[in-house]
Amino acid sequence: MGQSNDVNRRIVLAERPKGAPNADTLRQETAPVPEAGAGEILLRTVWLSLDPYMRGRMSDAKSYAEPVVIDGVMTGQVVAQVVTSDVDGFAPGDHVLAGSGWQDWAVSDGTQVVNLGKDPAHPSWHLGILGMPGFTAHAGLLNIGEPKAGETVVVAAATGPVGATVGQIARIKGCRAVGVAGGPEKCAHAVDVLGFDACIDHKAEDFEAQLKDACPDGIDVYFENVGGRVLFGVLPLLNPFARVPVCGMVAWYNLTGLPEGPDRSPQILSTVLRQKVKMQGFIIFDTFGATEHAAFVKDMTGWLEDGSVHYREQVVEGLEAAPEAFGDLLEGRNFGKMVVKVG
Amino acid sequence: MGQSNDVNRRIVLAERPKGAPNADTLRQETAPVPEAGAGEILLRTVWLSLDPYMRGRMSDAKSYAEPVVIDGVMTGQVVAQVVTSDVDGFAPGDHVLAGSGWQDWAVSDGTQVVNLGKDPAHPSWHLGILGMPGFTAHAGLLNIGEPKAGETVVVAAATGPVGATVGQIARIKGCRAVGVAGGPEKCAHAVDVLGFDACIDHKAEDFEAQLKDACPDGIDVYFENVGGRVLFGVLPLLNPFARVPVCGMVAWYNLTGLPEGPDRSPQILSTVLRQKVKMQGFIIFDTFGATEHAAFVKDMTGWLEDGSVHYREQVVEGLEAAPEAFGDLLEGRNFGKMVVKVG
Repeated sequence: MGQSNDVNRRIVLAERPKGAPNADTLRQETAPVPEAGAGEILLRTVWLSLDPYMRGRMSDAKSYAEPVVIDGVMTGQVVAQVVTSDVDGFAPGDHVLAGSGWQDWAVSDGTQVVNLGKDPAHPSWHLGILGMPGFTAHAGLLNIGEPKAGETVVVAAATGPVGATVGQIARIKGCRAVGVAGGPEKCAHAVDVLGFDACIDHKAEDFEAQLKDACPDGIDVYFENVGGRVLFGVLPLLNPFARVPVCGMVAWYNLTGLPEGPDRSPQILSTVLRQKVKMQGFIIFDTFGATEHAAFVKDMTGWLEDGSVHYREQVVEGLEAAPEAFGDLLEGRNFGKMVVKVG
Repeated sequence: MGQSNDVNRRIVLAERPKGAPNADTLRQETAPVPEAGAGEILLRTVWLSLDPYMRGRMSDAKSYAEPVVIDGVMTGQVVAQVVTSDVDGFAPGDHVLAGSGWQDWAVSDGTQVVNLGKDPAHPSWHLGILGMPGFTAHAGLLNIGEPKAGETVVVAAATGPVGATVGQIARIKGCRAVGVAGGPEKCAHAVDVLGFDACIDHKAEDFEAQLKDACPDGIDVYFENVGGRVLFGVLPLLNPFARVPVCGMVAWYNLTGLPEGPDRSPQILSTVLRQKVKMQGFIIFDTFGATEHAAFVKDMTGWLEDGSVHYREQVVEGLEAAPEAFGDLLEGRNFGKMVVKVG
């Protein structure tokens, strides 16, 4: 069943996953299409974004945002079209960016809804390169990573929306960009299409040695979005005064408890001390505000226009395919920014 | 045998310790008193500083400074008196701060030797509150920790020269200062004499619960100088945007390998991410320069004069007692800044 004017398909959290989400984690159900009242707009979802942070919202562990409630609609950013509007600034046919989650229809009072206009060139890009992942890459790399020309920048998930953007900005800033990705196809894409100087397959047995060879002058900026093996390959290569913006740790999101030993904490702390490393976590909309966002939009719009930044999406067809696609995303089986074509 | 004009007692590194230093690690030997030639000064050691970082110099693992060579004199800062001088700016009788190590006599060309004048009020303080440990506390806390009035600052080794200074500066800046120390006597000193708001005994079985009770508003700055159990007690209490200057990890200095599991790395990284923590290592003389040093000297001189900072030393009598005292220091059996009265 595709999108319809008669029912609202929605995907809800059926139970909190232990480890990786599985077929019991999410449940698709139907409800009536909600009605927009006075001061409200009715939104029909066109594109749904799938992002690793959503795994955190499935758990009730302390996190930086409230968890999704059981039987509640999964949270997520969408590009939607306005169907009816009783809110100034929104007219039927407008495309908007909204946080209405994994469903076909939603009602909003317009708060935190961004109008993208009648006919934006690439609506779904506002979920990726022009949206949260692009902003994450730009603000985190430039404000915390502070890359200088000639330095070496390393980032994992190098063909994902954040990693790909980090690497390309690093190149624009005159840095050596070294990516890490899963498998030869992604690595080739990172080098041939995105312009990374090198990209290492984290599935390679000698990953650590390859990474070292790819960073002959050490590592000045490690943009941390995965944790796990990549982090421990990077640590011995960090240069004095290296910067480590921390925006995610996909490799550890499905942990049900702490991994087996040894305890590598002393290795992290002693590297931070010895090499005078700055390691700083950030949550994009908590840490950065209007100033950084304006700088991002200005830079990124220009770079996309002049072709210095390339963007790849993986389009998933249909809302019903979202749960399985999300599982793939957590396992690195996506290739590019994952978006679901809902309607 | 005490200090003599005829021989130079010196303590050399006999072998690299595996784990804690023991009786075989260091060896005392004698050599002729060196002769100062043209362009040189002859220095007689008066006070030798003992500091945790010296443990790192005993190992040949990659570190931020060259290791001491086998059979070489142990490195260390001293306050010495000039006996003969052929260097402008140094006259016999002057007290100086020098890096001449664990020995009675040394010759220098004056490079990196600081003249303290004929009769400084408290010569040995230049190894502590007015020297490297004091500067470490001041520069690290104010420039990386950035404490604001009303915030909570936690520091371990709260009666040691760095921790005691961090806590007292935190109080001066209007923060709640919570110390961690080993045993009730040190904790009482931290609160009663140094003015900490609370001090928790890290040997207590319910240390983590006590720490939580002492920090009802969470922790905004954790000045990291010990690692180990204290770090993991602090992590769950860190507030959003907390700052963690990292200047040492005494609890882990004697490790011969990584500790047993579980691997707590994900806990460190996920806290950094979720709470948007800035964790930054620093090596005092690499990271900070003349500007920060001038600010430190100005502040600290004033605070010592007006009594708002209190300073405690533990004086060890005689160079021959230094090796055992150093072992005590690593185990936290000192009480205050440890200095050796050599001559």
